[in-house]
Amino acid sequence: MPTSSFPAPEPAETLTVMGAGLVGSLLSLFLARRGHTVEVYERRADMRLSGAVEGRSINLALSDRGWRALEGVGIGDEIRQVAIPMYRRVMHDAQGNLSYQPYGHDNQAIYSVSRAGLNRTLLSLAEANPRVRLQFNQQCLGIDTRARHMELRDTTTGEERQVNFRRLFGTDGAFSAVRSAMQKTERYNYSQSYLDYGYKELNIEPGPNGEWLLEKNALHIWPRGQYMMIALPNLDGSFNCTLFFPYEGEHSFAALQTPEQVQAFFEEVFPDVVPLMPELTDEYFRNPTGSLVTIRCFPWAFHDDVLLLGDASHAIVPFYGQGMNAGFEDCTVLDQLLEQFGPDWHRIFDEFQRRRKPDADAIADLAVYNFEEMRDRVGDPRFLLQKKIESKIAAQFPGHWTPLYSQVTFSHTPYAEAWQSGQAQEQIMRRLMPHIQTEADYDRPEVQALVAQEMADRP
Amino acid sequence: MPTSSFPAPEPAETLTVMGAGLVGSLLSLFLARRGHTVEVYERRADMRLSGAVEGRSINLALSDRGWRALEGVGIGDEIRQVAIPMYRRVMHDAQGNLSYQPYGHDNQAIYSVSRAGLNRTLLSLAEANPRVRLQFNQQCLGIDTRARHMELRDTTTGEERQVNFRRLFGTDGAFSAVRSAMQKTERYNYSQSYLDYGYKELNIEPGPNGEWLLEKNALHIWPRGQYMMIALPNLDGSFNCTLFFPYEGEHSFAALQTPEQVQAFFEEVFPDVVPLMPELTDEYFRNPTGSLVTIRCFPWAFHDDVLLLGDASHAIVPFYGQGMNAGFEDCTVLDQLLEQFGPDWHRIFDEFQRRRKPDADAIADLAVYNFEEMRDRVGDPRFLLQKKIESKIAAQFPGHWTPLYSQVTFSHTPYAEAWQSGQAQEQIMRRLMPHIQTEADYDRPEVQALVAQEMADRP
Repeated sequence: MPTSSFPAPEPAETLTVMGAGLVGSLLSLFLARRGHTVEVYERRADMRLSGAVEGRSINLALSDRGWRALEGVGIGDEIRQVAIPMYRRVMHDAQGNLSYQPYGHDNQAIYSVSRAGLNRTLLSLAEANPRVRLQFNQQCLGIDTRARHMELRDTTTGEERQVNFRRLFGTDGAFSAVRSAMQKTERYNYSQSYLDYGYKELNIEPGPNGEWLLEKNALHIWPRGQYMMIALPNLDGSFNCTLFFPYEGEHSFAALQTPEQVQAFFEEVFPDVVPLMPELTDEYFRNPTGSLVTIRCFPWAFHDDVLLLGDASHAIVPFYGQGMNAGFEDCTVLDQLLEQFGPDWHRIFDEFQRRRKPDADAIADLAVYNFEEMRDRVGDPRFLLQKKIESKIAAQFPGHWTPLYSQVTFSHTPYAEAWQSGQAQEQIMRRLMPHIQTEADYDRPEVQALVAQEMADRP
Repeated sequence: MPTSSFPAPEPAETLTVMGAGLVGSLLSLFLARRGHTVEVYERRADMRLSGAVEGRSINLALSDRGWRALEGVGIGDEIRQVAIPMYRRVMHDAQGNLSYQPYGHDNQAIYSVSRAGLNRTLLSLAEANPRVRLQFNQQCLGIDTRARHMELRDTTTGEERQVNFRRLFGTDGAFSAVRSAMQKTERYNYSQSYLDYGYKELNIEPGPNGEWLLEKNALHIWPRGQYMMIALPNLDGSFNCTLFFPYEGEHSFAALQTPEQVQAFFEEVFPDVVPLMPELTDEYFRNPTGSLVTIRCFPWAFHDDVLLLGDASHAIVPFYGQGMNAGFEDCTVLDQLLEQFGPDWHRIFDEFQRRRKPDADAIADLAVYNFEEMRDRVGDPRFLLQKKIESKIAAQFPGHWTPLYSQVTFSHTPYAEAWQSGQAQEQIMRRLMPHIQTEADYDRPEVQALVAQEMADRP
């Protein structure tokens, strides 16, 4: 067990974590490794005892920031065995023609993992740690941040009790009860912003021998301008699909009211996928329509008593595949601050929110931005050409040009810095692209001269 | 009475207004003029029976948008008699030296009015209208937007009752109960954002014969970079002052804890005003510290059942003097839509929010922007020179250049349009000003050539 081999220089405390989702269960492992006792409360039942069949739940794209955090508690290898690398985007047009865009260099990939599977693994690891105690079915009814206690209701017995805490970590997601208590403090900054789009989960069945009926090691996109569908591979040969679709309008959830309408619409706009979705109309009407919200707030800390992490402080839309990765990176950053400033919790909480807030804002903006790219621009040959030219620049000027996507996905560069650098590069591409009509144009002397000039002008 | 002389083509209804502040009482007059019966509920007691002495309450700056709305219900002249025109800003530096900046042309002014006095006048007009019924001490405990009823508590008797409504107008301010109900609807967009500054009300006494001890027809500013004080004239010779001050830091509310500290600080940074404030330290510690919030939300309408107006949908910080004016303009715009689309309430509510939301967002941004201008830039000679040059351009190109402040304050141009045009003009000034060191430079041929070029390039 990693716990015993890890130094715990600061005085051990009993810490409280509200929410045993992905971030909460990972955080409890980080805190336990530093010698603290961790009491974890979760509103829902223990998902290991019930719930979705493995491989059929929502999938997430794990990338470098997430991996680093998992490796921080020594479980990278374990997760890697159930993760499917996706090396490129595969775009499906309305005629079923395919085009391709690699995510990075040869071996760079994002990894499709089952959200439920990953959460179960993290819970089991937390439970096996003698310093962590998990309690499920614990609904938080209210928190007194000043008196440092909370009202919990056991949803199995209906019993209510008061629980005191010295330090409370709110990892209870986008609709956080801990944040609700923070929102009642004076001059609290808060925003919730919804897209006019919802999402619907659908499934692509495995082949008769459990084989993948689309390219396995890829993220599939059906970009259609104002809407799109994506698919991520599962271990059992199926794909988890998500339709991102306007709530209202000509092509929208509101416009598709009957199985016939759904079937006809899919046959028209996603013809290659319809034969792979035998349960399409059933699933469409059975599965709920999810909403897409961005939540921002500040402060994240209340003195040295309460700290929000993950979706509780920065819920984002899913289009950059960074929601979980950002929450996991919160754990890494907090752990670095524990190393640096422990046991000065006041400083740790304050540094955490000051350092992390600009990055959370940046990835929130990037996630909305990437929605436009995925639903619209990846279907545009000029856009794909630009991406190829960017790869050429990156190869020609190693260390001086990293595509925005790579900075976000395959580096630990703070999100805010990545976003700023990506915007500067986009400005350069806007000046270069009018001179470039084909990949070969890149090598023309006049284009090379322009590129050299742009690169010389970079700070 | 205006009611009888006004056409009421649409079928008369019974409408409900929650909140009898400035916007609610004015709105009830507009609705009654169109033949509707209006039930108005107000949480507070009738301010005409109690409360602040006339002329000593908070003052507001009434400008063209506000005047138009007051004239829309025929009470412009009545209010004009108790309004004090302010023709210019008077800046006081830390040595007590004065400098000046006119607000507009010779006769253009913003008007200092007593918030409480104006509200009382509007309440009396509403009460005198047979179609309006005012009920005070009515606290809204909750609203069911779908079932269209609300829980009201009479704060004098403690009695609670349910009140049905067909159409509810929420004019209950920044902490609106009607908006709270809207926030519980699905996918509601909402943000509250606080400045790190608070404000404190103070008073400058009248002279021994009731005379004004500072220039009467002006808005006074003590700009100090990171904070400022302002003063608006009252009818009784006093001035209503507001200190806008950081909550934390070297010069802040947190740093001034004793009467001696307050006295010493004011003597150092506002020396010319201290002799005019005999009750300074008493007032400083007696008056509460107010917070400064911007609230944005959307939608403002729930079907054709509920509509938010004024601060309930767009509370802004006070630095452009447009909070009340924007709320009053809401009434003008709604009245125009009632004229155009009555009795199609669905369309009226929808057009209202679609037309008005970008303007509300723009004035919210402008108000924060103007804080920086007032506390910092108005103390800078280069800034004042730029404003003089802008006046010269406006005079030389009539109809082709209107300073941003004038567009916001002395026109009915939609705020969003004014903001956009103001930003374009600011870009031009950034290009011109490096060539201009004195007012006389404007007439130099090379500067005139640059100006002519810039004006020719404008769309």
